Amino acid sequence: MELLGYKELSILIQKEIKETEYSGTPSELYDPMNYILQLGGKRLRPVTILLAVQLFNGELKEAIQAAKAVEVFHNFTLVHDDLMDNAPLRRGQQTVHEKWNSNIAILSGDTLLIEVYNHFLEGNYNNLSEILKVFNKTAIEVCEGQQLDMNFESRSDVTIDEYINMIRLKTSVLVGGSFEIGALVARAHKEDAQLIYDFGVNLGIAFQLQDDYLDCFGDPEKFGKQVGGDIISNKKTFLMLKALELDASGELQKWVDKTDFVNEQKVEAVKAIYRQLKVDELAFSLMDDFYQKSLASLNEIKADQESKDKIIEFAQALMKRSS
Amino acid sequence: MELLGYKELSILIQKEIKETEYSGTPSELYDPMNYILQLGGKRLRPVTILLAVQLFNGELKEAIQAAKAVEVFHNFTLVHDDLMDNAPLRRGQQTVHEKWNSNIAILSGDTLLIEVYNHFLEGNYNNLSEILKVFNKTAIEVCEGQQLDMNFESRSDVTIDEYINMIRLKTSVLVGGSFEIGALVARAHKEDAQLIYDFGVNLGIAFQLQDDYLDCFGDPEKFGKQVGGDIISNKKTFLMLKALELDASGELQKWVDKTDFVNEQKVEAVKAIYRQLKVDELAFSLMDDFYQKSLASLNEIKADQESKDKIIEFAQALMKRSS
Repeated sequence: MELLGYKELSILIQKEIKETEYSGTPSELYDPMNYILQLGGKRLRPVTILLAVQLFNGELKEAIQAAKAVEVFHNFTLVHDDLMDNAPLRRGQQTVHEKWNSNIAILSGDTLLIEVYNHFLEGNYNNLSEILKVFNKTAIEVCEGQQLDMNFESRSDVTIDEYINMIRLKTSVLVGGSFEIGALVARAHKEDAQLIYDFGVNLGIAFQLQDDYLDCFGDPEKFGKQVGGDIISNKKTFLMLKALELDASGELQKWVDKTDFVNEQKVEAVKAIYRQLKVDELAFSLMDDFYQKSLASLNEIKADQESKDKIIEFAQALMKRSS
Repeated sequence: MELLGYKELSILIQKEIKETEYSGTPSELYDPMNYILQLGGKRLRPVTILLAVQLFNGELKEAIQAAKAVEVFHNFTLVHDDLMDNAPLRRGQQTVHEKWNSNIAILSGDTLLIEVYNHFLEGNYNNLSEILKVFNKTAIEVCEGQQLDMNFESRSDVTIDEYINMIRLKTSVLVGGSFEIGALVARAHKEDAQLIYDFGVNLGIAFQLQDDYLDCFGDPEKFGKQVGGDIISNKKTFLMLKALELDASGELQKWVDKTDFVNEQKVEAVKAIYRQLKVDELAFSLMDDFYQKSLASLNEIKADQESKDKIIEFAQALMKRSS
């Protein structure tokens, strides 16, 4: 059978998700669930499941429900996180709590979380409990990561290690967990399932570090979000934490403490400090460390190089690089 | 083996829950989970699981994790419902969103919901998917019931059938579902599992109708809540809906529309209208219909009368009646 690339797998899962509709009453519960799921997005997590299933010679058809499950879980986190973060927009559209209200966001999010398990059940996996153990561990870690992220907002002594641990929990374990669930669906060996998990987690950390970097130094045309948002809100990213560590002049701290400023001026000033302290280069190098670490795990897996290459293509596209 | 009564089963599960502690970091996530679970309560739902397991000659030990699972689910609904209802107190203590904050209530509630599935996994049930199907269906219906309850607040055309359906979803299906899960843990026949579910759902509706009745006509000493709370807030209970239907004079509607009143005066006036229209008797009779219906389902189950009697004792205690 011919191997599929991440773009083809993405088209496949996009179609499946488009056809997914939760129906029931009252509509105040079900409309927001369908709304958030159909808002779009790259469907990265389900694609990772399909890539892992293909790597371990499993049946893609068998993986559809697991792939939907992780995407629905991701959407559950979006609904609740947007409410907690008081975010007005998601993919350029109103967030659920804005379009409806907070209570509906809480309750339709809860229902999405229960539907995650319905998808796993619909998959009829004979190793269901093994799959759910990996999923539950991951899901709880994602909650821990979100709580840490909220805690960090009011703390002034966050270390870089704590920051890396937070992004690992909040975003990367779900990438790793999705790869691992794909491996379990395909009945891969335990060691290989662990290696693909490690691959995914480190790739996820590299991806998040890149996202932080692009939030600051990205091309506004290509990035799709407001560039400099993290700087304006004093978000404790690697760039900020490392720069504060190196900021002997106290110049950065002054900008952090300022409550009255012109956004563009603060962004430009802080970017200049970052460049002067070379934390942009340090961030890039740290990102590369995690990326190389992820590739090393992938390399150790016992599988065809050809299907590994499909995963490498995906990782390269994610990291927007050609080597 | 000697059969256990609901009081002994309650002591057994109280001990198990007391020993349950979720540990992890950050503490802002785990402390509220342990707080709500240790606030107390009658542990009705886990007791129903144990009663059903005993009825179908299962192993009580095997049922502990399933019993914990439904109790943890119930506590998840308390955390989120209290937040949605803006309730300051739960069992006389601060609610989670009051003691911590709204975001922590959302996220620790989410984590409790995930832990529900961990308990089911820890039970090592070889019919796990069958158990989870019943649980998920129930859990989603509970969310539907909560959404309907919120919808009813702003609707003026709620029918009595709609009200009964709302309380069925919001509170009764979890009683029925718990009994059914107990039956599945004990590998009961499908028909018997369905009958014990029906028993539980109808008992649950009878119990909720009694709760509405006692909110209005109960002895303040014994009821444990503020008597008349439903009247003060114009809650659309059976009593209110039926009385509005029969209220030819428009006297009740006047009290409902009043925004400026003395609580005690409104409570006494509305109670007098209820008595005059005999909706208290109608409520009592409807409650009894559901109770008798529940007993009829129990009667059909193929099992020892002696262990059925243990369930009848439980139902009688719940309905605070001796016959």
